[in-house]
This record gives sequence, C-alpha cells and structure tokens, in this order.
Amino acid sequence: MLSTKEIQNAVKQLFDRENFISDPAELYEPIQYTLALGGKRLRPTLLLAACDMFGGDIAKASSAAVGIEVFHNFTLLHDDLMDKSPLRRGKETVYRRWNENIAILSGDTMFALAYRYFLRQWHPNMEAILKTFTETAIGVCDGQQYDMNFETQADVSIADYMKMIELKTAILLAGAMKIGALYANAPEKDIELLYNAGISIGLAFQLQDDLLDAYGDVSVFGKQTGTDIKDNKKTYLYLSALKEADKSQKETLQRLFKTTPENPEEKIRTVIGIYDSLNIKALVEKDIETYFEQSLTYLDGINLGNDSKETMKQIINQLLGRKI
Amino acid sequence: MLSTKEIQNAVKQLFDRENFISDPAELYEPIQYTLALGGKRLRPTLLLAACDMFGGDIAKASSAAVGIEVFHNFTLLHDDLMDKSPLRRGKETVYRRWNENIAILSGDTMFALAYRYFLRQWHPNMEAILKTFTETAIGVCDGQQYDMNFETQADVSIADYMKMIELKTAILLAGAMKIGALYANAPEKDIELLYNAGISIGLAFQLQDDLLDAYGDVSVFGKQTGTDIKDNKKTYLYLSALKEADKSQKETLQRLFKTTPENPEEKIRTVIGIYDSLNIKALVEKDIETYFEQSLTYLDGINLGNDSKETMKQIINQLLGRKI
Repeated sequence: MLSTKEIQNAVKQLFDRENFISDPAELYEPIQYTLALGGKRLRPTLLLAACDMFGGDIAKASSAAVGIEVFHNFTLLHDDLMDKSPLRRGKETVYRRWNENIAILSGDTMFALAYRYFLRQWHPNMEAILKTFTETAIGVCDGQQYDMNFETQADVSIADYMKMIELKTAILLAGAMKIGALYANAPEKDIELLYNAGISIGLAFQLQDDLLDAYGDVSVFGKQTGTDIKDNKKTYLYLSALKEADKSQKETLQRLFKTTPENPEEKIRTVIGIYDSLNIKALVEKDIETYFEQSLTYLDGINLGNDSKETMKQIINQLLGRKI
Repeated sequence: MLSTKEIQNAVKQLFDRENFISDPAELYEPIQYTLALGGKRLRPTLLLAACDMFGGDIAKASSAAVGIEVFHNFTLLHDDLMDKSPLRRGKETVYRRWNENIAILSGDTMFALAYRYFLRQWHPNMEAILKTFTETAIGVCDGQQYDMNFETQADVSIADYMKMIELKTAILLAGAMKIGALYANAPEKDIELLYNAGISIGLAFQLQDDLLDAYGDVSVFGKQTGTDIKDNKKTYLYLSALKEADKSQKETLQRLFKTTPENPEEKIRTVIGIYDSLNIKALVEKDIETYFEQSLTYLDGINLGNDSKETMKQIINQLLGRKI
C-alpha cells in the first residue's frame, strides 16, 4: 500500500506533466491559469487513495484523477462568476482577469475536458464510473442552485443546509472515493461504505470551513475571517445560532444579516459576540467530531485489514487539518 | 428502413414523453422551458436516421438522441447569454426571462444531463460513442471561441471562417450521424464516409443560414432579415464580398461594418446593394450546391444499397429546405 506522501506525489506529478494549452489560446489560457492555481488536489488524492486501498493500480486511474480535478476547478470557475468573487487562491478570478464570456466558455470546455480525461483510459467498470461521475456533476449543480436560493430564502432550516452542502461539497469527495474503488474492482458493499465515509467526511469538511471562516487563524487559514458574516451567508454557524438564540439575539442576527455596511468590522464583531455567548464554536466542533467519527466507523466496516486503511485515514485526518 | 416521417415521429415522441422538471425548480424550469421551445430536432433525427440506415434498432439509440439535443440546446442557452440575444425561437432567452446566473447553471446542468441520457442505454460501442460526443463538445466550444474572436479580429479569411463553422455547426451534425452509425455497428470505413457527408452538409447548412439572413423570405425563414449585417457579423457573404469587391466597395463595407446605427435599414440596403452588384447571392448558392453535392458523393460511397440511403438523402435535402 502507498503512503499518503506517495499518493500526493503521484497526484503532483500528474499535474506537473499535464499541459492544458491548446488553440484557440483565448479559451485554453484561462484553463491553464485555473489549473495552475494549485490547491490541495484533494479529490484526485482521494480517488487514487481509494484505488490503492483496494489493491488497484493507480496508474490506471490517473486520467480519472485529472478529470475529477478539472471538473472541480470548472465548478469553482463558474461559481466565482456567479458569486462575483474577485479572488481565488489569492489570484484574480477568470471572469475578472479576462471577462464573463471567457469564464462561461472556458468553464464549459473544462467540463467537456473532464470527460475527455475520464475516457482516456477505458476500464471494464466504465459504466459505473461514468454514471457516478455524471450523477455527481448533476448533484453539484443542484447544490449550487440551493446555495443561491438560500441567499433570498427567509426560512433555511439546518436540514436544508445539510442537504445543500451534501450536494455541493460532500458528494464530490465521496464520488471521487467511489470512482477510485471502482477502478480497483472493490466489492459493491465496500464501495457503499466508502461512499458513506466520503459523505460524512465531506460534511465535516464543510462545517470546518464554515467554522474557520469565523474563528480561523488568518495566517493558517490563508483568507480573511468573517467574510461569510460580511456576505450574509447562511452558514451552519448562523443557522445553529438562530436555533439557540433568544428572541432579542435572533432579531439582532436577522437584522444584521440584511445589512452590508461599508465597514463590516463592527457587524462581524457583534455577530461573533452572539456566537460566543451561545457557545456556537464548541457546538460546531462537536458536530464536526460526530461526522468525523461517523466517517471512521464506515471505514472500519470495510472488509480490509487495518493496514490497508491507514493511508485513507491519514488523508481524512489531514483534510480536517489534524495530525494522526 | 424507416421513412423520414417515421424517424421524425419517433423523435417527436421521445421529446413528448420526456419530462425535464426536477428539484430545485429554479434550475429545472429553465431547462424544461428551453427544451419545450421546439426547433427542428435535426440532430436526433440525423442520429436515428444514421442508426436505421445501417439496420440498427433506433430504440437502442433513443437516449443518445435525446442527449445530443439536450447538449445542442445547452450550447444555444450559453451562446444566447454570451451574445446577449433577447430572443430564441420567438421567445425570451433564459438569461432574460430569469437571470444570468440561472442561465449559467441551468446550462451546466444540461451538459451533465446530456451525458446522463447517453449513459442511460449502454452499448458495446460506448467507448467510441462517448469519445465522439466528448470530442464534438470540445470542438463546438472551440468554434464558439473562434466566432467570438472574429468580432474583434480585423483579418478573418474565408478559410478561418470555414474552420469556425465546421467546429461550431458542422461537427455536431456529423457527430450525431457518426454516433447513430456506431449504435448500428456500421463498418469503420462507412462511418468515416458518413461523418464526411455530415461535415459537408453542415457547412452547406451554415452557408445557407448566412444567405437566408440577407436574402431569406421573412415569412418562410421566420426571422428578420439583415440581422447579421446590423450586428456586423463577418459571415460568408461579407467575407466573399470583401474578396470580390473593388477598393471603394471594400472601404464602404469595412466602414459600415464598424457602425451600429439606431435605424439600420439604410446600412442593410447599402450592404445588400454591394452584395448584389458583386453577385454574391449566386456565388454563395453555387458554393452551397458544391458542399451539398460533396455530401451526396460521400453518401454514395457508403457500402449500402440505394434504398437504405433514401431517408438520409431526404433529410439532407429537407435540411436545405429542398424537396426531393
């Protein structure tokens, strides 16, 4: 079995040797730019780790690993346009650096390129692999729509929110793992357990992202804290706070989440003050822990020796910024 | 072998029974709306006709037929947004009726749905089928980018233009035919001939579209004539006219194609006046005829009896508005 480091190196090499430049340059330069922004390459790492975990040959799944990352970056590119985000990983987003039409069309092309990568290496399980990828892609689009709906929807429940992040975030992590396992011809029951582990860890991952936006160390997290509050995003923290709040706190939260002050510092301070008084940080940390433990329980159920699961467990820990 | 009418009825039934509504409604209503706008369903018709021509069972290719039409409508939806077109088939375009974000995301979803349809019926030739579809999709994106480049590119040659319309229009018609033939396990050599026939007829189809925009009968063509001239589109007519024009005519054309007058009637009249004096209509009609004949020559080369090719020939004739 490969170590975490070996899997990550394999992923790095895949992207180091890949060249996305083609004609017309106006279309492919933004694609090259987007994929050179880097990021953790989490989805290809999970895909290859899942393949290796079941004794599969990661070389045979490497095109799919590139494909899933290209797809993920396509969704980021279009999301940035829809959300009018100026920056991605500290650099200008495509629609700002070029223009909206270039962002639309280079995104569309990336989606098609993702399939080209999947199709580059055929496999007896291709029907299941491509169905998993396609249903995941549709689910991610559904999730993005729910997320956009929530901006103007008054009564978002925690259940609504969990469904949204499952679609928008968790199913792509789980899908990557399932696809990796399919390349290794893993048994159906184990694939289902792995997929469920992926959903749970994906939910934990998103809740942690919500938490870090309010409570993260800027120097570690790499982005400004409080942006979700500034942007009135109905995150897990906000929805949990609404549930725990008394009448006056609830009114303050709801009122503040309708404002967009030029200078948001005071708004952020007030909201985090309410979160603190309601112990939201501890509450969310507990929920993250629950999903994390759930994920490990699913992994434990898989019919493999503990040694085979070591790398996957390590990656899941790293995903939450934990050392094992 | 099925008649043109039978193929067209089969296509009609496919779309009559298909329901695109799902949750979230905000995402799927624009999809349902787009696919209910109708149109000639040319690509699924060509796909099923090609399948039937080689003795294939069109029922087994029916999901792919839906898929290729969903893909085509996705490209129209995103093109309308990029071109800021207000109307499509006489109705408001999606980005105008809803908004830009809805247009982006429902388009993305349609692209994924196209793959879902392709994957609904598995086939031994699925690798070739999906590669053909995916490479076609990438080519269509490339073509749209060239088309956008031409808006600001000063020196567009006729060769550049032909390459652009081959990618943007012809390869999807040819791809649909190739995919249909793959469902029927047609011999490789015949598939290549059919694909070439599709490219030629696709080029003829686009040149005819250019011609009708300037010379079409509004009551038959269904849209206002002269819009390409109004929008300064470098069509085959314009590029051919530039090639044939004397110095003064060339200057007039190039000057007028930089203007966007409030009232474009005089501009359209002047441009068509130049086209007329250069005999552009006859020149383009001759070129359409050449591509059309080329298409028939490729069809003739296919190793099948004439009876088997009758329906395909009829569809190709109808495509250019001709009776056989």
